[in-house]
Amino acid sequence: MSQSSSRVTLAQGEGGLAARQLLESVFLSAFDCPELRQLEDQARASLAELSLLGDRLAFTTDSYVVDPIEFPGGDIGTLAVNGTLNDLAVGGAIPRFLSCGFILEEGLELELLRRITRSMAQAARAAGVAIVTGDTKVVPRGKADKVFINTSGIGIIPAGIQMAARQCEPGDVIIVSGTLGDHGAAIMQARGDLGLQVDIASDCQPLHELVQLMLTASRDIHAMRDATRGGLATVLSEMAGTAGVGFQLDEDALPIRAEVRGVCEILGLDPAYLANEGMLAAVLPESEADAVLAAMRRHPAGQDACLIGRVVDQWPGKVQVKSRFGGRRLLEPLTGAQLPRIC
Amino acid sequence: MSQSSSRVTLAQGEGGLAARQLLESVFLSAFDCPELRQLEDQARASLAELSLLGDRLAFTTDSYVVDPIEFPGGDIGTLAVNGTLNDLAVGGAIPRFLSCGFILEEGLELELLRRITRSMAQAARAAGVAIVTGDTKVVPRGKADKVFINTSGIGIIPAGIQMAARQCEPGDVIIVSGTLGDHGAAIMQARGDLGLQVDIASDCQPLHELVQLMLTASRDIHAMRDATRGGLATVLSEMAGTAGVGFQLDEDALPIRAEVRGVCEILGLDPAYLANEGMLAAVLPESEADAVLAAMRRHPAGQDACLIGRVVDQWPGKVQVKSRFGGRRLLEPLTGAQLPRIC
Repeated sequence: MSQSSSRVTLAQGEGGLAARQLLESVFLSAFDCPELRQLEDQARASLAELSLLGDRLAFTTDSYVVDPIEFPGGDIGTLAVNGTLNDLAVGGAIPRFLSCGFILEEGLELELLRRITRSMAQAARAAGVAIVTGDTKVVPRGKADKVFINTSGIGIIPAGIQMAARQCEPGDVIIVSGTLGDHGAAIMQARGDLGLQVDIASDCQPLHELVQLMLTASRDIHAMRDATRGGLATVLSEMAGTAGVGFQLDEDALPIRAEVRGVCEILGLDPAYLANEGMLAAVLPESEADAVLAAMRRHPAGQDACLIGRVVDQWPGKVQVKSRFGGRRLLEPLTGAQLPRIC
Repeated sequence: MSQSSSRVTLAQGEGGLAARQLLESVFLSAFDCPELRQLEDQARASLAELSLLGDRLAFTTDSYVVDPIEFPGGDIGTLAVNGTLNDLAVGGAIPRFLSCGFILEEGLELELLRRITRSMAQAARAAGVAIVTGDTKVVPRGKADKVFINTSGIGIIPAGIQMAARQCEPGDVIIVSGTLGDHGAAIMQARGDLGLQVDIASDCQPLHELVQLMLTASRDIHAMRDATRGGLATVLSEMAGTAGVGFQLDEDALPIRAEVRGVCEILGLDPAYLANEGMLAAVLPESEADAVLAAMRRHPAGQDACLIGRVVDQWPGKVQVKSRFGGRRLLEPLTGAQLPRIC
């Protein structure tokens, strides 16, 4: 293959023959979806069929600009699928459809684009969702950084499920589904920011099956969030702020891999602010916790699930961490730019 | 306002306090949508309410990278709303919800972002759709070009509407809703590519009302496309290819503004390849044409609607133009990169 035909060209963003060629040779062959193959401007689905799954539609969007594009445990493609799925999942929705919008930099290696697209296809298949509609734009060299992906997702929320941050109330407990900061640490590693070689992979994975198992164990889960940008500290701060309650965490209970803890100690980072891409926090009545935790631990994405704290009526809107020596500190929401392009 | 606080910072893409500030000061204040205000990871809508509008969901996505960001007749914000609406509209869908994903370059002027966001809000309000979910990423200076926007759209297709390119058949006629190439010419103008000052504005506008009027006039419209990237020639080529029929156009019947025709003559361009952002082509039985054209001309977006040709069983997959002197030429789909970043 010649140099020129192995890289993305501006003409491939123009909607003509070159774009069609790119569509067929890269996207359609990877995604293999009958909806996409029709090449209409939109995908269609029966409302009656969707209504069999639940009574409400959920809709979400995220753009992915992660740097580097490939990292231990995933790439921008797996991230673009799982990240958007998880935004649906934490609202209790069963994900059904994804769109994908690519912005490509002229000169991008087609082989890299093929790898990313295969990752997306694989992640979507594994999660049981279809990538049904898409778009590709190409910008001149230097006007973007290799590849940016937007995915939007549609899911269906089963009847009776009502999760929202405002429902968190004193007496509730806080649980997490896995260890803190794996994605953030993996990205720092892949960037060479650590200055040392540590074996950390991103936790990038879909959470919707785990969430449905949790909801089977208890219909009374008050709220969930996946702890992505800004980490656990930031999502809990937002939830506490929305509900006007305080969160108290037990430092010793926070599950953190030894490798991540080591990296954070060396770099002076707090793992509670490092991003995850396959870990959620849930707030629920204490009476439901045992059943929900037991259900979570039966799923690979919930093996490290544990109780990390409780909701209190003190310090409304704040998250406080109690250390084993009785010390207390506030986890403020992230203020600076800790790790640009983490997802 | 200080220099630093009037520009987008990396921290605003990090999901912490700075991101929240940007969200509140720019996006929430412009969009003013109760769904967005809840700041959940997803927007929700009742399937029962949506089912009142029709029986199928339509889903589409587009990323917008237009250069320049502001141009006569619109900006990237109006384009991002109307472009995605129109992809829903040409399938007969009534647009309901939009998502928006911003990728911002560090250092972008906040005032520009506010203008774009206001344009989006205004365009969405005018079209009767809600921007219900969003996301913002910031990349370092030089890693993107000011602002890229992805919008995904959800619409509902009324029962009984079945439009698809494969339904075009010999005996059908081809109509367009307006003049060719206005958007492409306006962008060239705004880039200074024309080397002369001509008064051309983009036709950027929503088409869903027009489409519903057309469908009220006739339920038997076979297919529609909005003539965006690659222009009328490219979308008609695609439709002809999908249906395996030939299209014959009457050169004299193609509606082209004098200014656009002049510019094309000077630059050696064919207006049939210039992009539109508020013009559609429809294929329908000849018997329906008068009623549909009459309905179109009652709407501002369809005032210049006219019949431009017919579907034939010769030259399957091709679009042929017959000139007034009897000459014939093929309109091949766009092959090169005529105008990168046209939308």
